[in-house]
Amino acid sequence: MAKIGVILSGCGVYDGSEIHEAVITLLALDRAGAEVVIMAPDMEQAVVNHLTGEPVEGAVRNVLEESARIARGKISDIAKIQAGDLDALFIPGGFGAAKNLCDFAFKGPDCSVHPEVARLIRDIVAAHKPLAAVCIAPALVAKVLGEDKPGHELTIGTDEGTAGALASMGATHITCPVNEFVIDKQNKIITSPAYMLAGSISEAAEGIEKSVQALMELLD
Amino acid sequence: MAKIGVILSGCGVYDGSEIHEAVITLLALDRAGAEVVIMAPDMEQAVVNHLTGEPVEGAVRNVLEESARIARGKISDIAKIQAGDLDALFIPGGFGAAKNLCDFAFKGPDCSVHPEVARLIRDIVAAHKPLAAVCIAPALVAKVLGEDKPGHELTIGTDEGTAGALASMGATHITCPVNEFVIDKQNKIITSPAYMLAGSISEAAEGIEKSVQALMELLD
Repeated sequence: MAKIGVILSGCGVYDGSEIHEAVITLLALDRAGAEVVIMAPDMEQAVVNHLTGEPVEGAVRNVLEESARIARGKISDIAKIQAGDLDALFIPGGFGAAKNLCDFAFKGPDCSVHPEVARLIRDIVAAHKPLAAVCIAPALVAKVLGEDKPGHELTIGTDEGTAGALASMGATHITCPVNEFVIDKQNKIITSPAYMLAGSISEAAEGIEKSVQALMELLD
Repeated sequence: MAKIGVILSGCGVYDGSEIHEAVITLLALDRAGAEVVIMAPDMEQAVVNHLTGEPVEGAVRNVLEESARIARGKISDIAKIQAGDLDALFIPGGFGAAKNLCDFAFKGPDCSVHPEVARLIRDIVAAHKPLAAVCIAPALVAKVLGEDKPGHELTIGTDEGTAGALASMGATHITCPVNEFVIDKQNKIITSPAYMLAGSISEAAEGIEKSVQALMELLD
């Protein structure tokens, strides 16, 4: 049974993992017969009121505890997970991927990546194990791999500004419709736009389900 | 395009809506061609740390704001939604259905139901519009309909204690496996055990997807 790591970044599109993307990923992996290893960094995060879209001044939550909501409590601190524990890795999107797992949402191409997240992504790719990232999460991958794997191919959909930022971090951006994915066969990296482009949950699901299928096919 | 109301109760299995059940419901309804009207009560809720399973003493969140995480911000206060606005209603489970929408988790058959939730359930059933409830949410339906519709048929799976509580509120409990649902054709009520029995997200999804399909087939 293949063990697929899933990195969460909180619980909610504006300050954590995009919930639909995370659940669709977990369901698709379970239906594909994979064993899922859900993880998140043990760190503080800012809070956005999802009813108003406004920041909640002074409010702080813990990324691991909030991610545990999506995982129904079955989650590990990413610091305790090694690439050798996994056969592949999947990173759903949501602003948490760009605010918590790294600070791309604030600093763009000059962002820093959480050290444990950077370590696991780097080790998975170095071990030639498949990695999938959807929505804004490819920005994180571009930052981690930019120096080691220049020209690795990714998509975040069609947004030119974000695509330019990815290119400036060392990636080659490929435009991709919401219901498809981009595969970098050399580096075994799969990416799909999901809610960077999706107008409905079904649209997000189609690209994510195809990405999971492609990930499973890349397993040794 | 059928308008299907979805009542959420927060965001997380231990103090709100069960996130997998809610997202699977939204995806299945979207794929069935329905327009979804997501709603929740504007009220305070207690907080459970989903990493430890322990209550967070003194912590309070707002059910409508937390539910907005699952809805990506597109959510209404249930007080503003009338049965005439909808063609059917769907209630996912999670402890929020038994702690926030009503207090069945604390008081069992002597529970009280949030007045706006009770109003909408009662009006939907009175209008002969279909109602689906999964996991623990049927307890809520049993309490609301117990007096008006004695003997209405529901399932929460196989748990004898909970089944007995439903019966004492006026429902007739039907034992049901996780991948199936129970239909009360007279009252147009559909129920499925979901995470009352599910050992995996795929198991929960099968019963919920069948329930959504059955709900759509009951529409006029």
